[in-house]
Amino acid sequence: MRYLGKRVVITGVPGVGKTTVINGTIEALGNEGVVYTSINFGTFMFDIASREGLVTDRDEMRKLDQDVQRRVQRLAAQGIARIEGNIIVDTHCTVRTPAGFLAGLPEWVLRELKPDIFVLVETDEDQILNRRLSDESRVRDREGYVGIRDHQQFNRSIAASYAMLSGCTVKIILNADFLLDNAVADMADVLR
Amino acid sequence: MRYLGKRVVITGVPGVGKTTVINGTIEALGNEGVVYTSINFGTFMFDIASREGLVTDRDEMRKLDQDVQRRVQRLAAQGIARIEGNIIVDTHCTVRTPAGFLAGLPEWVLRELKPDIFVLVETDEDQILNRRLSDESRVRDREGYVGIRDHQQFNRSIAASYAMLSGCTVKIILNADFLLDNAVADMADVLR
Amino acid sequence: MRYLGKRVVITGVPGVGKTTVINGTIEALGNEGVVYTSINFGTFMFDIASREGLVTDRDEMRKLDQDVQRRVQRLAAQGIARIEGNIIVDTHCTVRTPAGFLAGLPEWVLRELKPDIFVLVETDEDQILNRRLSDESRVRDREGYVGIRDHQQFNRSIAASYAMLSGCTVKIILNADFLLDNAVADMADVLR
Repeated sequence: MRYLGKRVVITGVPGVGKTTVINGTIEALGNEGVVYTSINFGTFMFDIASREGLVTDRDEMRKLDQDVQRRVQRLAAQGIARIEGNIIVDTHCTVRTPAGFLAGLPEWVLRELKPDIFVLVETDEDQILNRRLSDESRVRDREGYVGIRDHQQFNRSIAASYAMLSGCTVKIILNADFLLDNAVADMADVLR
Repeated sequence: MRYLGKRVVITGVPGVGKTTVINGTIEALGNEGVVYTSINFGTFMFDIASREGLVTDRDEMRKLDQDVQRRVQRLAAQGIARIEGNIIVDTHCTVRTPAGFLAGLPEWVLRELKPDIFVLVETDEDQILNRRLSDESRVRDREGYVGIRDHQQFNRSIAASYAMLSGCTVKIILNADFLLDNAVADMADVLR
Repeated sequence: MRYLGKRVVITGVPGVGKTTVINGTIEALGNEGVVYTSINFGTFMFDIASREGLVTDRDEMRKLDQDVQRRVQRLAAQGIARIEGNIIVDTHCTVRTPAGFLAGLPEWVLRELKPDIFVLVETDEDQILNRRLSDESRVRDREGYVGIRDHQQFNRSIAASYAMLSGCTVKIILNADFLLDNAVADMADVLR
């Protein structure tokens, strides 16, 4: 008999420290015997597209036809929904593209994935700016304070529509400078 | 032949004075011969669940299985939608739970209820804080200024998604200190 | 064989200068050989309703039965979706009515129209106020700074739900005083 655990989607704008919070939470909960598997939605999509011979590297993903992209998105959501146990889906609430904000969980993903909890990891825009500036390993689109603020606000708005359509709860977790332990503790409280 | 009147959903965060505004408006309109029946969504759900033998007191409602809860929610929405005449549905835009904000009118409720007008009763966060502090009769979750502000903003966002899905209008009614009469007059204008 | 081009919906609150930006962008892109046809959603609806003998002038549109209005809206969306080439749909994100904000693109419009890009033309509330005050040719509902701010914010929120349902991107274009050229250039970048 299959055991479907909690379906938690975790998102946050680039530089907010989402991955650090996820890893800290999985470790903390693991110490208590609560097991979560973390799945990266983009990687899961890429694996499907590769197996189908649609792409050979990740850069090609964005160049896929819109219809094909959406079909692969849906397949990924279906596949992830079938995974047993508690899962964390690491993805984007919205992606900033040259044509504007793109939903990370459009209707066809939500209907398959059926998340229980949707998490927005947030912090002060200025802290995000500084984290981005000091992270030299990644080339990121340059964005100012207002751009980051608008992105975080837009993410809250679209998360509300995810809650309306899927019935998931929307939890905001603050990942402030010097207080990673608090973010991990808050996240663990939600996932426990 | 059935007469379906206006379907108005009225919401507001705890302490905003929603019930006072509803009662004042029903009385004011009644004096003009415009009749509205006020229905509490949670009570309507509880009555269904009790009749089905699922619960014996209201605290047990929250402990119901998610699937059962959603089925009862849908049944309540169906039942309310069949009530004749003008109705006010007194409910929550979103509920703050430990796992985050939960939609008061998820898709399966909206599709049955088909509201015409969705009202958000709002006021300044500081006024809400003070009203909560002086209301000793109720034990409420403690929340600060920022928490109340975020809740009110999230409610506006999800109300927008309710408008997209159902075609209802979204009306913001201000219930400021010392100005209850204005709130009642504004509400009566919308409901008349 | 039909050629379906880009489907771009452009919106903005009254006084933001949406039409000026649209006209400038169509001209600029035309000079590069990129052709867009601009369609006014309200006019398209009115033409359908007139042909059906439902109305004789535009004022009557608002007095149509809700069911009839929604049917005509859907027909308009279907008709526009069938137009070949690149199109700009000039419409409202939400309309401020006495009963509250009304969605310009409710579900039944989005499912037919299937927009690729949804644009919000915005600017500082004070600039909008001043533009409205100096435009004596139009009688517009009087609204203050806070009313305009709330309207623009509500538009962003509902645009997020449009993105969730349809998969369109949401692009914010700033049309600031003295900087129309920038707005046109930004819009052209998105539409090119």
